[in-house]
Amino acid sequence: MSYDFLYTVDDGVATLTFNRPEVLNALTFEVYAQLRDLFEKLRYDEAVRVVVMTGAGDSFCSGGDVHQIIGQLLERDMKGHLEFTRMTGAVVQNMRLLDKPIIAALNGMTAGAGSVLALAADLRLASEKARFAFLFTKVGLTGSDMGAAYLLPRIVGMGRASELLLFGDTVDAATAERYGLVNRVVPHDELLSTALQWAKRLAQGPTVAISMTKRMLNHEQSMDLISALEAEAQAQALLLMGEDHRRFYEAFKAKEKPRFVGR
Amino acid sequence: MSYDFLYTVDDGVATLTFNRPEVLNALTFEVYAQLRDLFEKLRYDEAVRVVVMTGAGDSFCSGGDVHQIIGQLLERDMKGHLEFTRMTGAVVQNMRLLDKPIIAALNGMTAGAGSVLALAADLRLASEKARFAFLFTKVGLTGSDMGAAYLLPRIVGMGRASELLLFGDTVDAATAERYGLVNRVVPHDELLSTALQWAKRLAQGPTVAISMTKRMLNHEQSMDLISALEAEAQAQALLLMGEDHRRFYEAFKAKEKPRFVGR
Amino acid sequence: MSYDFLYTVDDGVATLTFNRPEVLNALTFEVYAQLRDLFEKLRYDEAVRVVVMTGAGDSFCSGGDVHQIIGQLLERDMKGHLEFTRMTGAVVQNMRLLDKPIIAALNGMTAGAGSVLALAADLRLASEKARFAFLFTKVGLTGSDMGAAYLLPRIVGMGRASELLLFGDTVDAATAERYGLVNRVVPHDELLSTALQWAKRLAQGPTVAISMTKRMLNHEQSMDLISALEAEAQAQALLLMGEDHRRFYEAFKAKEKPRFVGR
Repeated sequence: MSYDFLYTVDDGVATLTFNRPEVLNALTFEVYAQLRDLFEKLRYDEAVRVVVMTGAGDSFCSGGDVHQIIGQLLERDMKGHLEFTRMTGAVVQNMRLLDKPIIAALNGMTAGAGSVLALAADLRLASEKARFAFLFTKVGLTGSDMGAAYLLPRIVGMGRASELLLFGDTVDAATAERYGLVNRVVPHDELLSTALQWAKRLAQGPTVAISMTKRMLNHEQSMDLISALEAEAQAQALLLMGEDHRRFYEAFKAKEKPRFVGR
Repeated sequence: MSYDFLYTVDDGVATLTFNRPEVLNALTFEVYAQLRDLFEKLRYDEAVRVVVMTGAGDSFCSGGDVHQIIGQLLERDMKGHLEFTRMTGAVVQNMRLLDKPIIAALNGMTAGAGSVLALAADLRLASEKARFAFLFTKVGLTGSDMGAAYLLPRIVGMGRASELLLFGDTVDAATAERYGLVNRVVPHDELLSTALQWAKRLAQGPTVAISMTKRMLNHEQSMDLISALEAEAQAQALLLMGEDHRRFYEAFKAKEKPRFVGR
Repeated sequence: MSYDFLYTVDDGVATLTFNRPEVLNALTFEVYAQLRDLFEKLRYDEAVRVVVMTGAGDSFCSGGDVHQIIGQLLERDMKGHLEFTRMTGAVVQNMRLLDKPIIAALNGMTAGAGSVLALAADLRLASEKARFAFLFTKVGLTGSDMGAAYLLPRIVGMGRASELLLFGDTVDAATAERYGLVNRVVPHDELLSTALQWAKRLAQGPTVAISMTKRMLNHEQSMDLISALEAEAQAQALLLMGEDHRRFYEAFKAKEKPRFVGR
């Protein structure tokens, strides 16, 4: 399968690099569709246990390409518009429903749909040069794009989410970290190596346990406390009977480091 | 219509100023009812696109007037009490259901019901002199007043919300900003001008897109991820077909600044 | 009733001290069961109005005892595992459903199930020496343990919760405070006295109002805005008719400090 972005897999870690640096890695119809399909396919790809997303050049992703997307959309009818917005939403859906951690390595401008892709990742690492803009209202659109109005308040709270989505202004990396929008800010040169180090740790970890953690964090956002406690009781009972937990226990007794197998 | 607070409209921006500075802008039965009715009426008032709320003198609003409200309520029966709490809740309901941004310019003491009105705004700007107290338990009442126990944890998280509501202690502006309770702290003299500048930006923006952003932030708090993604797909498909988005595109091609018309 | 932890009640404040410092206050099957039963019993114990939880020695609680719990669990069947995870979840359930504030005084290492017990408290005070680790994935288990994947994102947001649960790494007290994971960091020597001072304030406060505040914060996490506003209207109408609110009013008129009776 061929993609309009770079895609490599190494030792369980897939690295996806947006690669249209001349237009700040703007997204095209084709890239949206490829992302949607790739993240669905990855559910069943045993060779990939963690995904890293980043951008070539100075930007992570500037969102939908003004010329290639907006221009063409304006000629579409109602059904054509809904097909587009459902396709972009399906990218986020497939990222959140992927039972494998996704790490966004935000190397520069992260804007519009690019910023929502960052929200749909599980962990966000930012270069000191990263900047963020949910710039939808600046182009006459609603900030509720691709799940942004669902995801962002759950990450930074309703007050800051309202400001970011209503104005669409740019915030720098330090502010993003202070808000909890990114997990960590690192020197620009260390961004990708840190992301790959995080990815490697997760890929070598107990992957069923890690997947279950991501899945439950997702699901429990819509549960009440009592249902969540029962769901966790069932999930943890499963994991307690898994191979990796047993491997931890044997390693612990032997005073060794456990080697997990993801079962 | 006449109000017990100052109310002016200028170029799409309504400014509401609590104006009983001699009692720290305490609320009366009449003011609650007027706020409830005004925020409902504003839904249909095309002349107003953004609301700014502030207080005259040194306080934003100190909450319900002890003498005029508590004293009278104590003589009411059960139905009378419920009518009062439903009326105060209706103020918050009408603020949240108003499809126009509300900016609270918090110029000083913000306490009790005053602090819940601030929570019900979309954006909160604080003077360096602002202070916040959800002081309900200090008067023998529950911190779940007018939606505070719903709104506050979604803004600052459950840990800090629990502390603020259980104790009712006063926090200063810097702490409020650190918690995400306010969006920005500005020098006291710049508070109102900053609030009006924010309001003007929003009033001159793509107001359907902005309204939809507020509305979706509200609604998606009670949705699951999949429903939220579909809701956003529908909302954004609408906006993509709107006049303001087309205006952005034409301005972009002409390398001009878009002039939005709110359609 | 006899417990495997220290338990004292003084002037309305129960203090529960984990007391196996030689194993960092690791939990046993018996301690879990005792916690579950104690927190249920406390619902009906009029002598206790607030609970403080802390640990003897250098740790708050390091979670389930590796030898006594993991070793024995590995020999149990499916039903035996589910019984265990439901029992641990029931501790959290009974803590959240207890209509009395719980203050966690985190005196040192707070790990695994110990960190979830801290989340299930209402207020978290940390010593400068406190450290936190949701180390479940490190032992091959899911981070969704005892409600952690429900509680943690609602306290610190989804981004930080994902990192803490996926990696299980240790964070220090200052970081925990910055995230909102703890309410306050205090010098180690002042931890217990501060916790007891907080507890005393709450125990001498209007306890029905305080209980209702905790309960509504819990329930409203699963409500929509409109339902929450009605629920608060009903709750506050009740409190307005209570004895403690009347006592506040009388004291206010007499320019005295109110003496609450919890009715």
